[in-house]
Amino acid sequence: MSLIVVGSMAFDAIETPFGKSDKIIGGAATYIAWSASNFTKPIKQLSVVGGDFPQSELDALKLRGVEMEGVQIKKDEKSFFWSGRYHMDMNTRDTLETQLNVLANFSPVVPESYQDCEFLMLGNLAPAVQLSVIDQLKSRPKLIVMDTMNFWMEIALDDLKKVLARIDVLMVNDSEARELSNEYSLVKAAKKIMAMGPQYLIIKKGEHGALLFNEDQVFFAPALPLEDVFDPTGAGDTFAGGFIGHIAKTKDISFENMKTAIIIGSAMASFCVEKFGTERLKEITKEEIDVRLQQFQDLVNFDIELG
Amino acid sequence: MSLIVVGSMAFDAIETPFGKSDKIIGGAATYIAWSASNFTKPIKQLSVVGGDFPQSELDALKLRGVEMEGVQIKKDEKSFFWSGRYHMDMNTRDTLETQLNVLANFSPVVPESYQDCEFLMLGNLAPAVQLSVIDQLKSRPKLIVMDTMNFWMEIALDDLKKVLARIDVLMVNDSEARELSNEYSLVKAAKKIMAMGPQYLIIKKGEHGALLFNEDQVFFAPALPLEDVFDPTGAGDTFAGGFIGHIAKTKDISFENMKTAIIIGSAMASFCVEKFGTERLKEITKEEIDVRLQQFQDLVNFDIELG
Repeated sequence: MSLIVVGSMAFDAIETPFGKSDKIIGGAATYIAWSASNFTKPIKQLSVVGGDFPQSELDALKLRGVEMEGVQIKKDEKSFFWSGRYHMDMNTRDTLETQLNVLANFSPVVPESYQDCEFLMLGNLAPAVQLSVIDQLKSRPKLIVMDTMNFWMEIALDDLKKVLARIDVLMVNDSEARELSNEYSLVKAAKKIMAMGPQYLIIKKGEHGALLFNEDQVFFAPALPLEDVFDPTGAGDTFAGGFIGHIAKTKDISFENMKTAIIIGSAMASFCVEKFGTERLKEITKEEIDVRLQQFQDLVNFDIELG
Repeated sequence: MSLIVVGSMAFDAIETPFGKSDKIIGGAATYIAWSASNFTKPIKQLSVVGGDFPQSELDALKLRGVEMEGVQIKKDEKSFFWSGRYHMDMNTRDTLETQLNVLANFSPVVPESYQDCEFLMLGNLAPAVQLSVIDQLKSRPKLIVMDTMNFWMEIALDDLKKVLARIDVLMVNDSEARELSNEYSLVKAAKKIMAMGPQYLIIKKGEHGALLFNEDQVFFAPALPLEDVFDPTGAGDTFAGGFIGHIAKTKDISFENMKTAIIIGSAMASFCVEKFGTERLKEITKEEIDVRLQQFQDLVNFDIELG
């Protein structure tokens, strides 16, 4: 019983108003696995890399309980590469370069050993690829969570809608929720998007926190106010990893437990942005996570007498 | 023992993407008084209006326990008038017209009957006017709360800094906090602003909630996710009214009680935006307020096991 994580494992080059990285390790599935592995194992990784992807990076994840049977290594090709520049607000960015490389023809193959998985995390990828993973699973996972982005809404909306009809939890940011629903109010957007399939919707608002919707219920998780945001790359994937990691650990898919999972996702994301790439995620300890969760509790807890 | 509220009582004309108002009743002190009067009385109002301001509006506030001895009525002049147009995001707006009228030469006179006040709420006004009220009080109030805006940072920064040195709690929005501190990070901004005088800083982020800072502590109050925001005018003043109303009611100026006060302010602001002007504030009941406070509790409460 375990968790499948689908997504890219790749290289990024990042510029922010405060610094510039070399070509460093990135990719949605990389961040998700680093984050989720604090809470659950085994994690069964489904991805594709080129011959240029360092074996040491795969080995480091293996030591965290991440299985690599589903990671295709295309020796003669290059890994996916993205480079971007963040604006001063650190919420918006320009893409400088995208090289699809191995992702151009990625056709994931779910190994037999992955078939026992209870939880499926579909990281941001072409919707058709996400769908092919769902189709390959012989029994439906207990919970399917999907991340996506505006790019797919613009070039693959029909495919995206097919995936939406098959999943339980969708994660998007606020501008994506508005684009997908054609509604400005996030409450109205949530209703329209849930009508497309997912019973749960998580709207990520970066430094402004995240909202969880289910039917008429709504929960809000703040982002931790930070002195410095060093690099927001991967924060959304790290959030997803903390969320699904907690759900897979507890095997409880109630709305109440999803609230906790979102707080844990927010705490993990708050570490991610403190250094470039996955650097901070690789070094955090259980104790640091607990301290940060306590900070989230202090941040929003209040007493009030009603009546 | 009571609360003094200083600020404008005025007329507004408002355009939003969803509608347009006639010339309606507005003004910081009007919103603050309507909001605070749900929690405390008497409220001692300090303001100025022209002969065009309806007596019925003053009478309606009197019925709520708002005393008018400190409200100057200049029969031959006109009340302050502001007209503005909100953008689609309802967080930003353009001023279409400002007529200072009676505010141009407002020189507040604190009546003797106001001298026993424990709490002072300085609504947004010229800093020199705010300062003259503090100077007229024979004994310093237990808590002085000040609202201000970017306009005064640009044309009256020296005066503004003099007021900052005399108050306990400053309320500004996020862009104002950045302008005043010259820091982008709100955590860094808060430190710089608190070094200017106020022990407590509240940063209002509109639909993204509000932050309360004190020394190294921080508390976050969300905004209630709403289907429709009809008119944001006065939401900040209504927030201030709920905050100071609760503080004056409980006479407890601890950080813990300020958390509760901020949640109450947020709840009151969530009513304000549901209709044009003060319309919604005039009709809300104790029961409606309690229901909404419960919604705030549900919105952010979560359980987490640490360790």
